[in-house]
Amino acid sequence: MKGNSKMQEPVNKKVEVCYSPALYQYHRNDDAIVVVSDILRATTAICAAFENGVRDLIPVGGVEEAREWKRKGYLVAAERDGIVLDFADFGNSPFNFRPDRVDGQTIVYSTTNGTQAIMMASQARHVAIGAFVNLSALAGWLVSAGCDVLVLCAGWKNRYNLEDSVFAGALADKLIESGNFTTDCDATVAARELWHLARYDLVGYMEKAAHRHRLRILGLDDVLEYCHTPDSTDVVPLLKGNRLVSHLNY
Amino acid sequence: MKGNSKMQEPVNKKVEVCYSPALYQYHRNDDAIVVVSDILRATTAICAAFENGVRDLIPVGGVEEAREWKRKGYLVAAERDGIVLDFADFGNSPFNFRPDRVDGQTIVYSTTNGTQAIMMASQARHVAIGAFVNLSALAGWLVSAGCDVLVLCAGWKNRYNLEDSVFAGALADKLIESGNFTTDCDATVAARELWHLARYDLVGYMEKAAHRHRLRILGLDDVLEYCHTPDSTDVVPLLKGNRLVSHLNY
Repeated sequence: MKGNSKMQEPVNKKVEVCYSPALYQYHRNDDAIVVVSDILRATTAICAAFENGVRDLIPVGGVEEAREWKRKGYLVAAERDGIVLDFADFGNSPFNFRPDRVDGQTIVYSTTNGTQAIMMASQARHVAIGAFVNLSALAGWLVSAGCDVLVLCAGWKNRYNLEDSVFAGALADKLIESGNFTTDCDATVAARELWHLARYDLVGYMEKAAHRHRLRILGLDDVLEYCHTPDSTDVVPLLKGNRLVSHLNY
Repeated sequence: MKGNSKMQEPVNKKVEVCYSPALYQYHRNDDAIVVVSDILRATTAICAAFENGVRDLIPVGGVEEAREWKRKGYLVAAERDGIVLDFADFGNSPFNFRPDRVDGQTIVYSTTNGTQAIMMASQARHVAIGAFVNLSALAGWLVSAGCDVLVLCAGWKNRYNLEDSVFAGALADKLIESGNFTTDCDATVAARELWHLARYDLVGYMEKAAHRHRLRILGLDDVLEYCHTPDSTDVVPLLKGNRLVSHLNY
């Protein structure tokens, strides 16, 4: 990150939260760093992949595009509605991205909600990947970056979801508590309120969330505790051109 | 209302909350009753107008359309961004709709966010006008109606706002507590959480809201207490064709 000298200055930047990709146009700020959040499970899995040594990830939107990359010989992670696509090497469970499978690799990544949100934000100053697993590292990086921050919740098929919003509240809380950020955004106020309710028993709180029940029906709820446990990694994945890389390689 | 015999049956209908007109297409359910909420100030003012005897209100979307109705000799209430338009008889402060000015009248009504939301929902089974001022009456009417309910928050220029969301939570809470409604909608879960935080000091809680500060800057904050005080009226305004009428005349 350039401009580390800014780390000591109070900069009074703005933080906003956008609850759905369908609302992004009403929050758009190309001077901001956009943090994409898709807690269950895309952005958590992306952080896990970098924690476990992946070299870079290529986010793609459509199933056909993912299939085309597979034909070219790439490793492909792809799911729709929580189900691994038949041609793919991985789904988007963070547990798929084990060091022995991903270390040093390039992986093409397509999911229901998350990758579309990443692509949508690609005109912003930077696009960062946010999840509970990298919450503190991400907050620290954002404070030192000294730019406005817009948290873009991937949601569920353009609808609001609880886990992405609570994460947005957690991140906004850390930024505002740092003294370097303020907000005049009601969505940010509401997200912080939910974080304050959830913070001491995050997994228990998420019993309220609809997506948790969707995952349980699909037998995919093994990742819930991992996805809602803060700070298991220090990596901050960033979009560089059409690829996600670790902030250490940005 | 037809089907009053349903009042005693537990019907297990769904309640959902939509935080922005821009998200309406993802929640749309034409079998539902859509409750439009624009607490500051359109839907509060519409309830006040009916409480004070207005015969009917014609919601219109655009400024030019409102001006055309004025040329035809109608009373017109119209504002943009909180400012009364020069050709209009009223703005959308609920205090404008005094009995001596509105009793027995037809009024054409155009506002920044509220009327657009009403028009958007016009294909639903019914469109009802919701505000804290008619909260209990509206909840009672919805329970007896026995249909799914979708609360459509008018928001602020398609962005989330706190006062409409807290109202949505209050209404959803009453419906779910009645035993006749359930939800699997995360937006509804979150809105109820905020209502539970706000309910014992609603005006104080709304100090957190951005729109409150916008109104204060404009000198329009005299209505805040009225807009956040539940149950000053028993009227439930409903859309009938292109007009809003009291449920008593529906």
